[in-house]
Amino acid sequence: IAKEVAKLLEMKAQLGGDEGKPKFVLKTPKGTRDYGPKQMAIRERVFNAIISCFKRHGAEVIDTPVFELKETLTGKYGEDSKLIYDLKDQGGELLSLRYDLTVPFARYLAMNKITNIKRYHIAKVYRRDNPAMTRGRYREFYQCDFDIAGQFDPMIPDAECLKIVHEILSDLQLGDFVVKVNDRCILDGMFAVCGVPDSKFRTICSSVDKLDKVPWEEVRSEMVGEKGLSPEAADRIGEYVQLHGGLDLIEQLLQDPKLSQNKLAKEGLGDMKLLFEYLTLFGITGKISFDLSLARGLDYYTGVIFEAVLLQQENEHVEELVGVGSVAGGGRYDGLVGMFDPKGRKVPCVGVSIGIERIFSILEQRLEASEEKIRTTETQVLVASAQKKLLEERLKLISELWDAGIKAEMLYKKNPKLLNQLQYCEDTGIPLVAIVGEQELKDGVVKLRIVATREEVNVRRESLVEEIRTRTSQ
Amino acid sequence: IAKEVAKLLEMKAQLGGDEGKPKFVLKTPKGTRDYGPKQMAIRERVFNAIISCFKRHGAEVIDTPVFELKETLTGKYGEDSKLIYDLKDQGGELLSLRYDLTVPFARYLAMNKITNIKRYHIAKVYRRDNPAMTRGRYREFYQCDFDIAGQFDPMIPDAECLKIVHEILSDLQLGDFVVKVNDRCILDGMFAVCGVPDSKFRTICSSVDKLDKVPWEEVRSEMVGEKGLSPEAADRIGEYVQLHGGLDLIEQLLQDPKLSQNKLAKEGLGDMKLLFEYLTLFGITGKISFDLSLARGLDYYTGVIFEAVLLQQENEHVEELVGVGSVAGGGRYDGLVGMFDPKGRKVPCVGVSIGIERIFSILEQRLEASEEKIRTTETQVLVASAQKKLLEERLKLISELWDAGIKAEMLYKKNPKLLNQLQYCEDTGIPLVAIVGEQELKDGVVKLRIVATREEVNVRRESLVEEIRTRTSQ
Repeated sequence: IAKEVAKLLEMKAQLGGDEGKPKFVLKTPKGTRDYGPKQMAIRERVFNAIISCFKRHGAEVIDTPVFELKETLTGKYGEDSKLIYDLKDQGGELLSLRYDLTVPFARYLAMNKITNIKRYHIAKVYRRDNPAMTRGRYREFYQCDFDIAGQFDPMIPDAECLKIVHEILSDLQLGDFVVKVNDRCILDGMFAVCGVPDSKFRTICSSVDKLDKVPWEEVRSEMVGEKGLSPEAADRIGEYVQLHGGLDLIEQLLQDPKLSQNKLAKEGLGDMKLLFEYLTLFGITGKISFDLSLARGLDYYTGVIFEAVLLQQENEHVEELVGVGSVAGGGRYDGLVGMFDPKGRKVPCVGVSIGIERIFSILEQRLEASEEKIRTTETQVLVASAQKKLLEERLKLISELWDAGIKAEMLYKKNPKLLNQLQYCEDTGIPLVAIVGEQELKDGVVKLRIVATREEVNVRRESLVEEIRTRTSQ
Repeated sequence: IAKEVAKLLEMKAQLGGDEGKPKFVLKTPKGTRDYGPKQMAIRERVFNAIISCFKRHGAEVIDTPVFELKETLTGKYGEDSKLIYDLKDQGGELLSLRYDLTVPFARYLAMNKITNIKRYHIAKVYRRDNPAMTRGRYREFYQCDFDIAGQFDPMIPDAECLKIVHEILSDLQLGDFVVKVNDRCILDGMFAVCGVPDSKFRTICSSVDKLDKVPWEEVRSEMVGEKGLSPEAADRIGEYVQLHGGLDLIEQLLQDPKLSQNKLAKEGLGDMKLLFEYLTLFGITGKISFDLSLARGLDYYTGVIFEAVLLQQENEHVEELVGVGSVAGGGRYDGLVGMFDPKGRKVPCVGVSIGIERIFSILEQRLEASEEKIRTTETQVLVASAQKKLLEERLKLISELWDAGIKAEMLYKKNPKLLNQLQYCEDTGIPLVAIVGEQELKDGVVKLRIVATREEVNVRRESLVEEIRTRTSQ
């Protein structure tokens, strides 16, 4: 009955309500989008660049379910938890859609007692955020994560993660970028010497995290007003978070009378110095900025944190660089796996997440502007006929080509016009046409037409596969 | 506060309840699984085989969100609707996880007013079914769909879908298989001549669909008992559904005194005859069986339907073939897009869905039995050192290799033992080791060790990339 009612309601919706137009809304859910063939072609280019980088660094690949037990995600994200999608309770377990790939990875490690792995994972994650789709901010979006888990000598895996960000952003040719780096230990040490009470570290950290979007004055008033921090402490923080630089700044802060007295800050600065030494060996410090305003939103980071930002020259004369948003981020999270292990055994981890959607938006806009024609299939040859009544012959020939591994199409018409068949090749970029005609069948040949040059050659049927291969190999 | 409470509860759960052990359950949701690196390696092989077949047939690719508006899915699946996962109402739209890729595809076509496309889509779908995970039945599983939408001459796209199933199952070498084919028009005509009332067509169709899992007696008693069909009508159906064969059976049924009088059945049989003629041209009728017991569960099919089943020789002597379950299925659904179009404009579609999980289960079991070692990375070379204090030199060398596109790894230790580094190559299948030592650095060379043969050669540093490429190209 329920089914019948649903059907009737559906039909009613289709037929339209009182106003005679359908009530049914034809759309994708808020904050989501379809990817058509053109978009997919761009997306695959980006994925291929990212995956080859991950493979170049020796990563294995894993996959996890799109939803997790709700309790798996609970208490891992701090103030962001409110953005998690829950599934309806339909009896059975309470489930939520994954919010990132990091927590599922930590759950996977603890569940399988893995203490040592380098893996990547490319999959969709879900956040009930306010979407800004033109700028590539969606509720469903891909993350491309690379993580190194295991007990290793300090900063070597951390440096590799930054190298990976550098390689990928260079490879994708998105323009100039900078990777901001900081360390949660330095932040916590800084909070301590500025007079922030221990209990407020994480929430003040969340406020600092907003500095890339809102001016310091707003962040300060949130700290003092909403979060009850003393104005003096806030002002002290305000001085530190303006600082950014390289090895020189690290050395300077190691001499800072207050910071150098704080154990956490001192350790963090020592790590940062080592990290910069390794980055120097990798030759990438030119695009790395040690930035005390970088905080990262998520609760689970424990050490190095970083975020890559694309720079856009607003005005060529002024040379002022304006950030157009974060395209990659990550950091060290040494405590997360231990939160899942029944005995609290820790597995230190560091990782990077590439935010594909924003990169994709940029490339999509660029491609639209350039009017470059992008092929959405790889078809090598169209099997066509010059006369009527040759459907059977086309079917026989295309079947031979498919079986030989040739990418081939034909029009699904009994008697298509030759002109329409040639037009289809023009429209879709198919480079060759294999034409069967009565005379060719008698002679045991196929007429091969090269679309670009309109040249036509007769090819013996037994040589056709080889001829197509030769002519379509780059 | 809510966050703090959640954190405390989490900590309490970690510390354990009254019995001193954690209440937290470390698992994936019911009916789901993780894919580790080995499983992913197998999965990628299968995907590659399927994708290259789809591309060989000239398909574009699209992607849609993992959830749809609930009303998009409502009234499309018939009795299966109860298995749809709903998302919790957190304010805003009511959403459900996609149940297959076909309904989202139809929604995509209607929304974008596309009347002509050949596309594939590989993505996870969700069904709150009773999982049978050892046999590859999950609640979250991949579907690999290929569909042809558009108004074309009859049976040409339908025949291509069957060709695709044949190519993929042959290519994957899963053993013998048969593709059962039927037509909803023939079924409906058969129901009519057997005396099934029009209103019971779909529900009786659902009963017939169970014939591959339960014996006729049970299906008959469901028809008569639960669904109120007359015993005589059920018995007449019982006679037809035993029939299976090829062109001969089609000819026979075209002469059947009852069926030949029914317009729907006659049309369906005419289509089936044409389909078999095309399949003969493709040379694949040997594995196609016209089977009157095939019904398919979903409501939306309107014409040709098919299902591929793997056959397993239970006993070599008896040569009795037993089906081990469906690995692909599909059919024609000419009405689905029209259900979404505000004006009900129809776009005829036919498509095939490859069920990857069952195929994957078989290949995984086979691989485990064979003890074949499967590599989970593509690393070409390990950058190693023979003495202490060479971390910087290793970092410099590996950075050069990465920048030249070489897949390289190193151990994340300051002073790893050479033996451990060689052992790592043995364990992970890395074929080459590039060893830096003090003497080599002085001489401007790197010692390249071939793991399999233990051969070692000194290679000039500037020739190293080329040497690695040569030695690792197949």
